[in-house]
Amino acid sequence: MLHRLHAPLRHLLALDQLPRATIEALLDRAQTLRPRALTGDPAYRPLAGCTLANLFFEASTRTRCSFQLAAARLGADVLNVDMATSSARKGESMADTLATLEAMGVTLFSIRHSLDGVVAELAAVCAPTTRLINAGDGRSHHPTQGLLDMLTIRQHKGLDFSHLKIAILGDIKHSRVARSDLHALRALGAGEIALAAPVTLLPDAATAAGCSVQASADDAVRDADVIITLRLQRERMEEGLVPSLEAFYSDWGLSPQRLQLARNDAIVMHPGPMNRGVEIANEVADGPQSVIREQVSNGVAVRMAVLEALAATKADDQS
Amino acid sequence: MLHRLHAPLRHLLALDQLPRATIEALLDRAQTLRPRALTGDPAYRPLAGCTLANLFFEASTRTRCSFQLAAARLGADVLNVDMATSSARKGESMADTLATLEAMGVTLFSIRHSLDGVVAELAAVCAPTTRLINAGDGRSHHPTQGLLDMLTIRQHKGLDFSHLKIAILGDIKHSRVARSDLHALRALGAGEIALAAPVTLLPDAATAAGCSVQASADDAVRDADVIITLRLQRERMEEGLVPSLEAFYSDWGLSPQRLQLARNDAIVMHPGPMNRGVEIANEVADGPQSVIREQVSNGVAVRMAVLEALAATKADDQS
Amino acid sequence: MLHRLHAPLRHLLALDQLPRATIEALLDRAQTLRPRALTGDPAYRPLAGCTLANLFFEASTRTRCSFQLAAARLGADVLNVDMATSSARKGESMADTLATLEAMGVTLFSIRHSLDGVVAELAAVCAPTTRLINAGDGRSHHPTQGLLDMLTIRQHKGLDFSHLKIAILGDIKHSRVARSDLHALRALGAGEIALAAPVTLLPDAATAAGCSVQASADDAVRDADVIITLRLQRERMEEGLVPSLEAFYSDWGLSPQRLQLARNDAIVMHPGPMNRGVEIANEVADGPQSVIREQVSNGVAVRMAVLEALAATKADDQS
Repeated sequence: MLHRLHAPLRHLLALDQLPRATIEALLDRAQTLRPRALTGDPAYRPLAGCTLANLFFEASTRTRCSFQLAAARLGADVLNVDMATSSARKGESMADTLATLEAMGVTLFSIRHSLDGVVAELAAVCAPTTRLINAGDGRSHHPTQGLLDMLTIRQHKGLDFSHLKIAILGDIKHSRVARSDLHALRALGAGEIALAAPVTLLPDAATAAGCSVQASADDAVRDADVIITLRLQRERMEEGLVPSLEAFYSDWGLSPQRLQLARNDAIVMHPGPMNRGVEIANEVADGPQSVIREQVSNGVAVRMAVLEALAATKADDQS
Repeated sequence: MLHRLHAPLRHLLALDQLPRATIEALLDRAQTLRPRALTGDPAYRPLAGCTLANLFFEASTRTRCSFQLAAARLGADVLNVDMATSSARKGESMADTLATLEAMGVTLFSIRHSLDGVVAELAAVCAPTTRLINAGDGRSHHPTQGLLDMLTIRQHKGLDFSHLKIAILGDIKHSRVARSDLHALRALGAGEIALAAPVTLLPDAATAAGCSVQASADDAVRDADVIITLRLQRERMEEGLVPSLEAFYSDWGLSPQRLQLARNDAIVMHPGPMNRGVEIANEVADGPQSVIREQVSNGVAVRMAVLEALAATKADDQS
Repeated sequence: MLHRLHAPLRHLLALDQLPRATIEALLDRAQTLRPRALTGDPAYRPLAGCTLANLFFEASTRTRCSFQLAAARLGADVLNVDMATSSARKGESMADTLATLEAMGVTLFSIRHSLDGVVAELAAVCAPTTRLINAGDGRSHHPTQGLLDMLTIRQHKGLDFSHLKIAILGDIKHSRVARSDLHALRALGAGEIALAAPVTLLPDAATAAGCSVQASADDAVRDADVIITLRLQRERMEEGLVPSLEAFYSDWGLSPQRLQLARNDAIVMHPGPMNRGVEIANEVADGPQSVIREQVSNGVAVRMAVLEALAATKADDQS
């Protein structure tokens, strides 16, 4: 018997489209599934007979593996479709690639693409029985990452986010993780969200709505309950957005000294993969306040919850 | 209990070697399996314990996925062996690669290669318990595509092909799909087969045996019951075989206007991936007469039928 | 009920660290599992719910497939993680990649890397519940290959190796297979081990300890019970270590004439992939004394035995 949300969910494209109750229901379900997330239970196969395709137009070992394991632990079949190499493309439109897999009986898709909005465009043309999960598009959305970050915060700080100060440090401008986190944090009523980044990596006003932009990383981190560090893509230096990796670490990286400005029980998060010594110090990444590995484990549970919820939505459900 | 054909089938290399009764038996079985092709039935596992290797020396996401799903829906294990990258080769002969996988217990192989005749050569040296499926070799054969095309025609036009006019348009010369379709259409007694292509893309006389070669696409399409459009590889233009993609579409592409020359109930087919606006118009590909998505679905059913039939053939069966 | 060794085994990193009793217990178990190695038994799933990750930083189709099938035939889930392409790396440390997969619930890892010592380094930092198998690192170790070679020798020559002469021919210097074979042969008390290679491809004294280095391949092969031929990487010629492939074959390759110097019942082995006509003649590779395909089959059984033994080791076991 497939677990259903109170309200049917057709696709998971972005967190800013979801009501708070749906986000909370997904997190509740993920928490319930958490014990099954790391060890498969051969008797638990609510998605037996279903097929998930991991349709990745941009390579991501980590996210692909997480979806593959989440599906396997629900008894689904998995098809890995790596479209990142040009030879895989053959000039076919993405809509045709999707339709072809639909015609083979695939109903669940996790889709990763380097361009903004691609998954939402595919949602507009897919079959009524198809369920899409945005596994990261451009700089826009990475909703399962946003959910797993919220689950991690909940586990350490409780269900009420209204008294929390959350600091987000680093390359916010180019980060779909930061955007999805911000959507979720606002939906869940986070008390204070403090952003800190070099001017060249600050997001636009709409993304930063409801947040305070701090002049320094120290100001953002001070008295924070939660610190979210972000991956700095090394290309940013070549693009001239960052003077040097050393200067970035000094000004915006989470060093042990900087972490001491936060509350004693503050947790440290990072979506991975980490550039150690750039956006986060080794001692912090591996220290007692780091919950980075828990984020990864929660990722499997969250993806199980999302796959279940989408598979439980019928073609004639409203959403 | 594994379904067996009336006559054992050792390999599926090419359709021109198969008696009509075998082709029809495979199509009958595929039709029976069709409801199981798109949704897996965890209780239906006639190939449990068997392993299929998708041994692809040329990349093909679509065909590889179809074989993988067909095998999974019969309960078989699947090994994807991508030999398209040079690093995978290490100078080992194909026969040794095959023998190595045989020695690991793989008994079912789908093999794709860019050179003609490779799969037949491997069939000559493989173990007696090994079953090979030609998943496309060079310009020669793509027998499961031929079968799925016949299944699609049957579903729309009935079992008797003798009164049908089938038009095949485009790059017939380089198309293994067209060759396998022609083998099957002749075996099943198709009434009239009309070919239309630029002179540079017409096949040789042996391939075109029993067909009429039309001077124009309009002539081929006129009063057709079935229109098979073929993928034009864009390299053909660079090779000088096609003056321009626009000219090709105008002269040989299936436009809505051209389609109106066919019978009102004509069906439109394409093996995919499509070059929209080159060999087929958007409105035709997505129009009510298009059965292109059904071809894909039938592909899974046909491959299930073939895998079952090969697995049911014992080493001491005659074939 | 999972089969346990008499002594718990935390990782399989190298054969020179294993007591003879452990090597023999693994070989005994592999022999017992041998009938299940080639055909899956859907009812035999001692590792159901476990996940093996094939974490390959260097491509190896053969070894990856063998591990995948071994795991599948024990009912485990398998994650293929190809880290050989630079895009997969994203600058993340190997330890972080491992930790991320651990956090997803992966407990069993087969790891291949082009550098010496990498797997041992990862063993020093992995979680207590993690079990690593060295699937080949640099020129150092390939312990499952060593075990499968011993299993093959046992099947033909019995459990007592003390009366056997084993010849090892070719590029011993760069061969992790030769090193693991030498570790195992010494542990199992092989009577005489004769090495033969061009001076440029002879191993150092520590590797050759207990072996006789012969001046010619003929001397090594003479009266041998077992002949192990090794792959010559073609780059060795470009590096100037081998004058020509023809000269190498003539001096050090296993020709039918050279094989006649060995005992009549000598067996011929090769780890694959073979360069036919370089280190081994076609007629020898495919001749009645060749056990090269049996090695491959034994590889699946050995890897099943190793996976079982590691999975049966609890986090608090001593090892």
